[in-house]
Amino acid sequence: MDSKTIMKDITDRAREAAVELAVMDAKSKNKVLLSMAEELDNSRDNIKKANETDIASAEKNGRNKAFLDRLKLDDKRIDGMCSMMRVVAGLKDPVGDVLEKTERPNGIVIEKVRVPIGVIGIIYEARPNVTADCVSLCIKSGNAVILRGGSDAVNSNKAVCRALKSASGGCGMADGAFILIEDTSRSLVEAMLESSDGIDLIMPRGGESLINEVASKSKIPVIKHYKGICHIFVDETADLDMAEKICMNAKVQRPGVCNAMETMLVHEKIADEFLPRIAGELKSAGVLIKGCPLTVEILDGAVEPAKDEDYGTEWLDLVLNVRVVHSPADAIAHINRFGSKHSDAIITEDRKNAEEFTGKVDSSAVYVNASTRFTDGGEFGKGAEIGISTDKLHARGPMGLEELCTYKYVVHGSGQIRE
Amino acid sequence: MDSKTIMKDITDRAREAAVELAVMDAKSKNKVLLSMAEELDNSRDNIKKANETDIASAEKNGRNKAFLDRLKLDDKRIDGMCSMMRVVAGLKDPVGDVLEKTERPNGIVIEKVRVPIGVIGIIYEARPNVTADCVSLCIKSGNAVILRGGSDAVNSNKAVCRALKSASGGCGMADGAFILIEDTSRSLVEAMLESSDGIDLIMPRGGESLINEVASKSKIPVIKHYKGICHIFVDETADLDMAEKICMNAKVQRPGVCNAMETMLVHEKIADEFLPRIAGELKSAGVLIKGCPLTVEILDGAVEPAKDEDYGTEWLDLVLNVRVVHSPADAIAHINRFGSKHSDAIITEDRKNAEEFTGKVDSSAVYVNASTRFTDGGEFGKGAEIGISTDKLHARGPMGLEELCTYKYVVHGSGQIRE
Repeated sequence: MDSKTIMKDITDRAREAAVELAVMDAKSKNKVLLSMAEELDNSRDNIKKANETDIASAEKNGRNKAFLDRLKLDDKRIDGMCSMMRVVAGLKDPVGDVLEKTERPNGIVIEKVRVPIGVIGIIYEARPNVTADCVSLCIKSGNAVILRGGSDAVNSNKAVCRALKSASGGCGMADGAFILIEDTSRSLVEAMLESSDGIDLIMPRGGESLINEVASKSKIPVIKHYKGICHIFVDETADLDMAEKICMNAKVQRPGVCNAMETMLVHEKIADEFLPRIAGELKSAGVLIKGCPLTVEILDGAVEPAKDEDYGTEWLDLVLNVRVVHSPADAIAHINRFGSKHSDAIITEDRKNAEEFTGKVDSSAVYVNASTRFTDGGEFGKGAEIGISTDKLHARGPMGLEELCTYKYVVHGSGQIRE
Repeated sequence: MDSKTIMKDITDRAREAAVELAVMDAKSKNKVLLSMAEELDNSRDNIKKANETDIASAEKNGRNKAFLDRLKLDDKRIDGMCSMMRVVAGLKDPVGDVLEKTERPNGIVIEKVRVPIGVIGIIYEARPNVTADCVSLCIKSGNAVILRGGSDAVNSNKAVCRALKSASGGCGMADGAFILIEDTSRSLVEAMLESSDGIDLIMPRGGESLINEVASKSKIPVIKHYKGICHIFVDETADLDMAEKICMNAKVQRPGVCNAMETMLVHEKIADEFLPRIAGELKSAGVLIKGCPLTVEILDGAVEPAKDEDYGTEWLDLVLNVRVVHSPADAIAHINRFGSKHSDAIITEDRKNAEEFTGKVDSSAVYVNASTRFTDGGEFGKGAEIGISTDKLHARGPMGLEELCTYKYVVHGSGQIRE
């Protein structure tokens, strides 16, 4: 069979399951999830064995250490997958919530009801724990999911899905509710991205090049969980103790994540005081500063000069761009130019400047006097997240179960016609 | 300058204006809209003159009557544009609404706030009244808009925009708030569809071929206002008087619109009774019936046999597909296969069947005992609409001012950091 025919068969099965999933009650979905967690737990020896095969091939293929670490499924990771399943089972079912309700003068009652998106396609790298996480979030939100994981993880993914399938089948769930594409050839991914009738949303999970490739080829709407070039602007009225504490937290507490600070903007009126005091602390923490000319001058050459492209770089490391700006407007313009619409903060005691910042910075999360590190499904109270959207349509910021849903209008009448 | 450079300049201006529009208060936006309406009114002679030039060229180019009608700007259409501007000025400003608010245990307060999308691109056919309608809806919702209208309407569009610009400039609104692309060459449209940094959303407004072309080429998210293949399913427990009234309304009251019924599905248990009685009425109204084999048999050959492709056709005319089905499940499967996710109705007295129908039919609006003709911004209480989305992400069904917005998280803290 050609790739198009194979994909048509896959999406038909998923579409059929999605219709049933859309009306499945919370209790039944939770039962499946708990049963999956148990089966994963019981299958851990098989899963680890399959993973060893993948690890061995990946080593033979010269994959680097970070790659192998992401690929690895040890007991701790399997425990994590099981506990994620159980957490998701415990979350509130978002499906069926009535978001708005109006009765029109002619007597029809219009309800805007939260419903699943339908069929979601996930394209991801060789991280087999993603397989279980995505299945649990999609099923709980009533969506069917088609999974295409990195080819290096194919045996691990198959073992994980075999366990999940055994549990879901035992609960009577339709086979198309989650489908792993086992053939990881490129032509099949391309056929997947062309399946605009069969798949409602594609979410690439992985690095920049994967996301760019998927976004440029997809005929299906894509939500990107893209890089985080996050800024903190220390305004002239900032409480400098607070600013120091927040900036240190946003830079060094976990530098390798998307909500860590990559660029610190400092108002010129406090730069002379603030920069020297935080520079010492940053240095002690091992942070390399890349500064604008004024920063270089104030810090007396103890920093590297920043180039324009540095401001557009997600370091994910102990590196920080520092730039002195003339005004909140200047800071906002910098962020809207170089940022990635992720998370940006202002430290200020001036309410008007805070409002200007939150109103004009075009990012999914804007903070006043708090660390950008809070942009996270758990910290936002969503219980779990499938990622952090840096797009502006459908969902922004942390995507939990509600963001995996859309809505429809359900209209009840008693014979009304349009005059 | 090449097309890419021209578009970069246009999107930069729009982006700059969008930042200001995002924080513009309702009073100022309404002042601009009312001033635009007045200026349009005062410029009607210029506008009609420019329109005459377009009409003359279109006639010379052999455009058909329907095309010329859509292109025409007479006093009635100009009145319509002015009154739309004034209606939109009177609508509630959607920007700044707090959709959710939570205080987390650590004391940060997270508000989910409605904000404009940013820069919206509209690609439309030679209908110059669309120009004014889109400008008013986008500005009121705080968005900058880039307009690319059909080349046959270029003089009309320029005249309309000249009037609008004179008004908005007089009110001090940024020049980039709405920009008409006056050069209607194909290469510029292509550059527009590549501008994923400069434009946040593309909405094609027009026929199927325009929508398909835009959707397939765009690197920017697209919301499609696609065709309406709407169904009414007359269930076995239907009140047949009500069913007759609703089906007649949905088919003949205005057959040329997207929420008119194209296919009637009838439960086999009532087909013998219902089909003959409505067939006579449909015939009197001039409706041609295309029936499934059972329909042909029941109506004794007085109908044309329906082909499979008929069920996927948006007739927009006095033509109706009729199919006898065996169950609600059969009706739902037909709709999900042949429908366009627009508007579909069930006529039933059975609550369980109604629930199954509204739960499983995957359309933006699902009706119980009411006409599909109600899917409309005005009828839904939105005041005005920019179109009816047949997509499932971001916005479904009638898109009013709220649907031209997205959200951001605004987080206020007092120095909180992530532990």
